[in-house]
Amino acid sequence: MPAPYQLGPNQYGKAQVRLVRVDRDTPRHRVSDLSVTSQLTGDFTAAHTEGDNAHVVATDTQKNTVYAFAREGVGAPETFLLRLADHFTGSFDWVTGGRWEAEQYAWSRIPTAASPQGHDHAFVRDGGETRTALVVRDSDATTVLAGLADLVVLKSTGSEFVGFPRDEFTTLADADDRILATSVTARWRYAADAGPLDATAYDRAYEAARAAMLDAFAETYSLALQQSLYAMGSAVLDAVPEIAEVRFSMPNKHHFLVDLTPFDLDNPGEVFSVADRPYGLIEASVLRDGADSADAAWALVGGFC
Amino acid sequence: MPAPYQLGPNQYGKAQVRLVRVDRDTPRHRVSDLSVTSQLTGDFTAAHTEGDNAHVVATDTQKNTVYAFAREGVGAPETFLLRLADHFTGSFDWVTGGRWEAEQYAWSRIPTAASPQGHDHAFVRDGGETRTALVVRDSDATTVLAGLADLVVLKSTGSEFVGFPRDEFTTLADADDRILATSVTARWRYAADAGPLDATAYDRAYEAARAAMLDAFAETYSLALQQSLYAMGSAVLDAVPEIAEVRFSMPNKHHFLVDLTPFDLDNPGEVFSVADRPYGLIEASVLRDGADSADAAWALVGGFC
Amino acid sequence: MPAPYQLGPNQYGKAQVRLVRVDRDTPRHRVSDLSVTSQLTGDFTAAHTEGDNAHVVATDTQKNTVYAFAREGVGAPETFLLRLADHFTGSFDWVTGGRWEAEQYAWSRIPTAASPQGHDHAFVRDGGETRTALVVRDSDATTVLAGLADLVVLKSTGSEFVGFPRDEFTTLADADDRILATSVTARWRYAADAGPLDATAYDRAYEAARAAMLDAFAETYSLALQQSLYAMGSAVLDAVPEIAEVRFSMPNKHHFLVDLTPFDLDNPGEVFSVADRPYGLIEASVLRDGADSADAAWALVGGFC
Amino acid sequence: MPAPYQLGPNQYGKAQVRLVRVDRDTPRHRVSDLSVTSQLTGDFTAAHTEGDNAHVVATDTQKNTVYAFAREGVGAPETFLLRLADHFTGSFDWVTGGRWEAEQYAWSRIPTAASPQGHDHAFVRDGGETRTALVVRDSDATTVLAGLADLVVLKSTGSEFVGFPRDEFTTLADADDRILATSVTARWRYAADAGPLDATAYDRAYEAARAAMLDAFAETYSLALQQSLYAMGSAVLDAVPEIAEVRFSMPNKHHFLVDLTPFDLDNPGEVFSVADRPYGLIEASVLRDGADSADAAWALVGGFC
Repeated sequence: MPAPYQLGPNQYGKAQVRLVRVDRDTPRHRVSDLSVTSQLTGDFTAAHTEGDNAHVVATDTQKNTVYAFAREGVGAPETFLLRLADHFTGSFDWVTGGRWEAEQYAWSRIPTAASPQGHDHAFVRDGGETRTALVVRDSDATTVLAGLADLVVLKSTGSEFVGFPRDEFTTLADADDRILATSVTARWRYAADAGPLDATAYDRAYEAARAAMLDAFAETYSLALQQSLYAMGSAVLDAVPEIAEVRFSMPNKHHFLVDLTPFDLDNPGEVFSVADRPYGLIEASVLRDGADSADAAWALVGGFC
Repeated sequence: MPAPYQLGPNQYGKAQVRLVRVDRDTPRHRVSDLSVTSQLTGDFTAAHTEGDNAHVVATDTQKNTVYAFAREGVGAPETFLLRLADHFTGSFDWVTGGRWEAEQYAWSRIPTAASPQGHDHAFVRDGGETRTALVVRDSDATTVLAGLADLVVLKSTGSEFVGFPRDEFTTLADADDRILATSVTARWRYAADAGPLDATAYDRAYEAARAAMLDAFAETYSLALQQSLYAMGSAVLDAVPEIAEVRFSMPNKHHFLVDLTPFDLDNPGEVFSVADRPYGLIEASVLRDGADSADAAWALVGGFC
Repeated sequence: MPAPYQLGPNQYGKAQVRLVRVDRDTPRHRVSDLSVTSQLTGDFTAAHTEGDNAHVVATDTQKNTVYAFAREGVGAPETFLLRLADHFTGSFDWVTGGRWEAEQYAWSRIPTAASPQGHDHAFVRDGGETRTALVVRDSDATTVLAGLADLVVLKSTGSEFVGFPRDEFTTLADADDRILATSVTARWRYAADAGPLDATAYDRAYEAARAAMLDAFAETYSLALQQSLYAMGSAVLDAVPEIAEVRFSMPNKHHFLVDLTPFDLDNPGEVFSVADRPYGLIEASVLRDGADSADAAWALVGGFC
Repeated sequence: MPAPYQLGPNQYGKAQVRLVRVDRDTPRHRVSDLSVTSQLTGDFTAAHTEGDNAHVVATDTQKNTVYAFAREGVGAPETFLLRLADHFTGSFDWVTGGRWEAEQYAWSRIPTAASPQGHDHAFVRDGGETRTALVVRDSDATTVLAGLADLVVLKSTGSEFVGFPRDEFTTLADADDRILATSVTARWRYAADAGPLDATAYDRAYEAARAAMLDAFAETYSLALQQSLYAMGSAVLDAVPEIAEVRFSMPNKHHFLVDLTPFDLDNPGEVFSVADRPYGLIEASVLRDGADSADAAWALVGGFC
């Protein structure tokens, strides 16, 4: 029999419920494509210590709920997750909070000779970044986070890295013109006093935040990836007043100028090799002045952001 | 000492040489981003049976050659691989052929407030499909293949699957309106008598083939994924006269209509779950009449296509 | 010019430095194979707001330091990371803490006819789980965490799931004999007052914790995966007194009994299909009584554990 | 309407049917864990050209058949696939052949304090290599291939690479003591005249082939990875008389000696960095004298081997 140790923080649920919702009220269909995760927190001690499942809302039930709720439409991922949060915390006394997360994959209409503006019901999946949303609720508060993952960007010039400290282990030379490339993962937190927005507002905020960070990445002459990051975060806060904080995790995807001198060739910033590992990893938060810290919510994000 | 067994088919080289080439002759940069594999065939028996490396052009040398050749520009992946093929078979008597392969990743200019037509040197990587190229040479012949991988498409209606045979293990019901989704991997073979094209022609053929298969996927009312495939292949052959054959490997990415009746809800083709595995897998070739079969080249593709 | 927003939490460094260290002081070699990540915290504001790199110890320097430190040997991953933490916080005034992480991959000697006890310098990589270590330091405290990832286990009987609440979205039937399978990711925290252990002690603790959790998984008749988790955590705390807390993230890898009745076959717990997604996800912490909570350290783990 | 192009080679079926079979005739359970792919060839022209599914044995039916056949036991993957081949070619006139493939994942009993010889029904998944099997049938012949994937091995000494040709693009120095590491993918072909073996014989052959290649890798002083490969192939042919040919695809997983001289440290073969890409790729076949070539079967393998 196990010793009577203490049960610490815990959460459980169903991960990666793959949901495609077709809006077909008109012949011009719309597609929502998501992977949804639902995790509950509350009083689940007896399940752990005694195997008593009386409080364990089955993860299968959580999955069913995702699909049933999709019957009424998905809207924005943020609003869909908020509906799930309200349902689970409202339906079971012992469920006091949880963590609901979504990844959303974008699709574009296929342009055809017959439908140059895009086909009514044929789509090609956009590659590029994934849109993310995360709702964290505990008894006191609900935090809405949104973001994107894997937005890969590159500057072929307009980036340098000089003036860093040199110690006994430093061999890197100053670089006054280098390729700067990264895969942006960003997550922003809506201010608590902004209240829940509607689906259209979340969608607009997503587009505005994405455009702002791309613009700032492109237009910033970069002295350090940290500087680009801070500029991108500032641009997001400029663009969307409801956002209190934005965090980034940005790997520095190193592009090395290939030394072609053994082959009697110069290489004026033209031929680069690309490494997978190791990579630089730059992570930081940019906060609106006076923003609440919301540390408890960030601790449940599952990574720096 | 090993018994004197026979050395069979063999090839060796360097795989996944990651190359980024920046064309910066004007302030409006262009970026070529590739993963290149070079493998040689010929007389390498002594390396296997005696560890005699006199014929073994080092894989490191093959990598260096890729980077050195990029100094003069990349062009289309097909033309770049042909240059490598000519070099290796022309430089070493005992190298009689080989297999040169590339994946190419596309980048778009970032539109900014200051440069709405796209920034001069800041780019965002397109997701979506990867462009592929493969040159196979043996003493007699050179085969140029091109294609794409992971072009993910979906029709939300306009697809059915009925009339299939029913045996003791059949439980699937007829479907007269289903989601049809697949991730297209395609590879086409240029006719031997088309000769090598120039870079612009390979690029145009790529765009034309891609557009043709998307159009055919969208516009075909699909009775079977096989039928869509054949239509897509025919469209490619219609669009690009230099192509002799096109092959597809198309997983049927199953979308299952969720049964919502336990929740007193109907589901008129709106809410779907998506499975990763198992998946249908449909693979076929469409050939121009009278096309040569080129079986030897396809055997080196590394898969159905 | 970016608005004067506030820089929030930030960390940066080099990720996934792949290091193989061969101990060859005797002909019977030993191999240490790790992926090491080093991230620094401290005063890096100027890099973000002004692009001033005077404080930015280059990530390349961090990589070099990893390799240089390996020259004196690796020892246990925990002790190797502690050496790095001491170095970086001791060498740069403005570096007040950081996060150093390792994954370690195990190798076994190849048994041969000539060396049935295992070859001196030929190894086969163990699959299975990865050993992990993480050292988190801030100005006040150093936390040592260790663990493993991807230890995949399965019980073919001795598991049930009954007595869970049923609501309008519940369709799952009670299961009184099911397959229970999971991929264990665990991380345990050494008590602050245990002080740093030596390499041998960390290695022994790892083996003891791993064995304890496997034993508890196997021997617990499982009424819920939560119950198995709690038993496994308790067993770890029983086995290693220096551990204050252990956390688990355990996906419930669903195995579904296939309905063979359409084929006039029964299926008495023998034939199962396996799903990838969605999956249950059970996450919890088991704490020794009176253990400090160390929330700040867990927040930097990068996930539940 | 598509032009009347010719349908070339084609095959279709269900990929990656995940099957776990528990043999529970005694309390000491046994587990078979496989991913099975079934693809049919024959007359499927009408499905492609007209969307007529009268010949299209549904991929769902193929999946059901896999599960139904597992009710009687799995045996060796080779024998299981042969049963599927016989069924499909024997049940449908127009199915003249196909391609049946399996990956098998190994599990070990968990040793516990109460059951030091391993628990009756609790298992831990072995990592390391995956066992593979492939049956290719056309109207004339059945070819049985077996193998393994991802057997990762390393020699910390006893490997050199010297004497290779030097051209204008060669910069690699001779190495007279290097780490040799590779991830072995091997596939062997049973001689047609060996006939189908029984499950026990296939299992024994697998173990013997695996042991032989490990022994040869370890005991061969390697002048080239090609030489190690040939020795490994010869050892397999020595060990299992029923095998006519064995093919290998072996990436050269480069381990680079780190230059520590900038830090006033020597590095006598002790500290290595490891690269993911690019990598050497060595592929070759070793044939028993007089073995038939079976090129048609290899063309369906989906890669060099």
